[in-house]
Amino acid sequence: MDIETTYNDNNYTIHIGWGILEEKLLKYTAHYGTIHTLVDQSVYTLYSSTIDALVYQPIILEGGEKSKNFQSYAHVMETLLSKGIHRNDLIIVIGGGASGDVGGFIASTVLRGVDYIQIPTTLLAHDSSIGGKTAINSAHGKNLIGTFYRPQAVIYDLSFLKTLPQEELRSGFGEVFKHALLDGEDTVHSLMSKTTENIQLESLEPYIISGIRTKMRHVTQDEKEAGIRRYLNLGHTFGHAIEYNDKLPHGVAVVLGLYIMMHVSNSNSNAQVFELSSYYRYFKRLGYPMDTLKHMDVEKLIALMSKDKKNQDDTSIGFILMTEIGVCHYQQIAKEHLIQLLEELKETL
Amino acid sequence: MDIETTYNDNNYTIHIGWGILEEKLLKYTAHYGTIHTLVDQSVYTLYSSTIDALVYQPIILEGGEKSKNFQSYAHVMETLLSKGIHRNDLIIVIGGGASGDVGGFIASTVLRGVDYIQIPTTLLAHDSSIGGKTAINSAHGKNLIGTFYRPQAVIYDLSFLKTLPQEELRSGFGEVFKHALLDGEDTVHSLMSKTTENIQLESLEPYIISGIRTKMRHVTQDEKEAGIRRYLNLGHTFGHAIEYNDKLPHGVAVVLGLYIMMHVSNSNSNAQVFELSSYYRYFKRLGYPMDTLKHMDVEKLIALMSKDKKNQDDTSIGFILMTEIGVCHYQQIAKEHLIQLLEELKETL
Repeated sequence: MDIETTYNDNNYTIHIGWGILEEKLLKYTAHYGTIHTLVDQSVYTLYSSTIDALVYQPIILEGGEKSKNFQSYAHVMETLLSKGIHRNDLIIVIGGGASGDVGGFIASTVLRGVDYIQIPTTLLAHDSSIGGKTAINSAHGKNLIGTFYRPQAVIYDLSFLKTLPQEELRSGFGEVFKHALLDGEDTVHSLMSKTTENIQLESLEPYIISGIRTKMRHVTQDEKEAGIRRYLNLGHTFGHAIEYNDKLPHGVAVVLGLYIMMHVSNSNSNAQVFELSSYYRYFKRLGYPMDTLKHMDVEKLIALMSKDKKNQDDTSIGFILMTEIGVCHYQQIAKEHLIQLLEELKETL
Repeated sequence: MDIETTYNDNNYTIHIGWGILEEKLLKYTAHYGTIHTLVDQSVYTLYSSTIDALVYQPIILEGGEKSKNFQSYAHVMETLLSKGIHRNDLIIVIGGGASGDVGGFIASTVLRGVDYIQIPTTLLAHDSSIGGKTAINSAHGKNLIGTFYRPQAVIYDLSFLKTLPQEELRSGFGEVFKHALLDGEDTVHSLMSKTTENIQLESLEPYIISGIRTKMRHVTQDEKEAGIRRYLNLGHTFGHAIEYNDKLPHGVAVVLGLYIMMHVSNSNSNAQVFELSSYYRYFKRLGYPMDTLKHMDVEKLIALMSKDKKNQDDTSIGFILMTEIGVCHYQQIAKEHLIQLLEELKETL
């Protein structure tokens, strides 16, 4: 299945399917000089024969957040430049979210920008590979350095996902669930009914595709995050903070962030938008570490949330909240009030 | 005098004049949250009272090419982030070409892009501050890492130029002369008649302004350097190589590069487009180190030129040449032929 972006210009295709990598990739590579490949170390370990059959001497990315610091960025950049990369070359980035982030940042800044193709290999990357955000991390927080830079294509070959351990699926599922929340009540209930005990890749395919469509809808209308793109940060304000502080996988932290969002949304609209206890049981059954919230260091997490790129001042924190499932708005919440809400939630757990 | 850019969108103004900094700057700062200032160390030493009266606690850039390595980039980036910079803040970059390059790169990549204003303080920066190119250096060559990112304004207060030593004027004049060549024969002859013995700032003002207009004409028609913007690289293919190899000031290297371009242009069009000996005497009289060319390491310089971002293959080097003054074209020249041309030129010096 192909999904086309609908920007005003420079559109590209997201190809999704099983075993599509070679066929789709060859459509693009013919138009370029040399092909340079950046690949996540663990993906290369599993798929070296597939990858070596397609590309020549890939550059290995350490994988995970380690690859997103200044040193790794500089190292990969110098390696590419030592190979004499040209502007009419193509960069291929194969890996999960972290590899896509740093690979995209490399592509956007080497020679002031070289074309690139994203080849996501995780469930989580169904989210991060869409929307043209690139990033590396700062000592002061995740993804604080980066660019907006669109790929020439995304080739999402679901075959890569078959080797993902349950832990990785659980992380990726955080974004699948977020996209379902943005889509509306029907999608959420349908998804929950398909994932009662554990997360099976096979049953997720329709939700991955609808998730990509949901994300695309938000990013094409608002590439630079001035309006509705911010809704994609549902669960992420708190999620990023606890991810950083407790070293949790991204999507796991997002699930915790979504739970916090549900509590704050209920309180903010003085209504039971979300029936908290049923979500709590559901997330716990799927293996999410809900107890982390019971022991969270509220002050520290709020200090981390203060660094979020979307904040507009120093006394409050910007949150995406819901008045009903599928209906978002942006709201600044005073830090003091937020402390109170989080402490209150701890009591209930 | 104000010059407006003429892009399809996101246009900005280049303000040029004497003593205009405070008045023009205040027009912009009111629209932003916190103002963050990056300033070249040597500029701050000379103008700290002027700068401190306008902005609060500037971040000091080392100045020169030293500020354009990965480490300085990372250091300034982390300093800005430690101050809790927001997306609705403004970055002001005060300094010469190097500061503008790294400051622009910082602005384009911190939080995926924060608005910035360029305040060039050198003659050379009349060139580099126009066109929205940002850059840092690689171990493999100058400006190989960067972005295209437009400022919100350029405020070119010529008062800063009064303290420039002759050496700095000589470097900046390289780009003034290049812009005159692009403009046409009349401008070249008029400029040469105003600068017979040395370079006086006062007589240069009209050529600075026409130079900015010439540069603007090229960059607005072709921001991403697919066509005529490349003509601005007149003299730069060789210039960058000898600048890097012989540690010459940028504009001085550009003058040497222009002289090489003249020789290659004559040879290429089988005509005397440029009367070489008169340009040689003129450049020598203005203090340019023309003897450097006599002792140049041709093989090494060609290896460096091979890394130029505009090259399209590994066997030839792309040059901007002239068939008459003011009329450019792009041409790939086989490396072997270029070696011959350069060795030939050495003989004549």
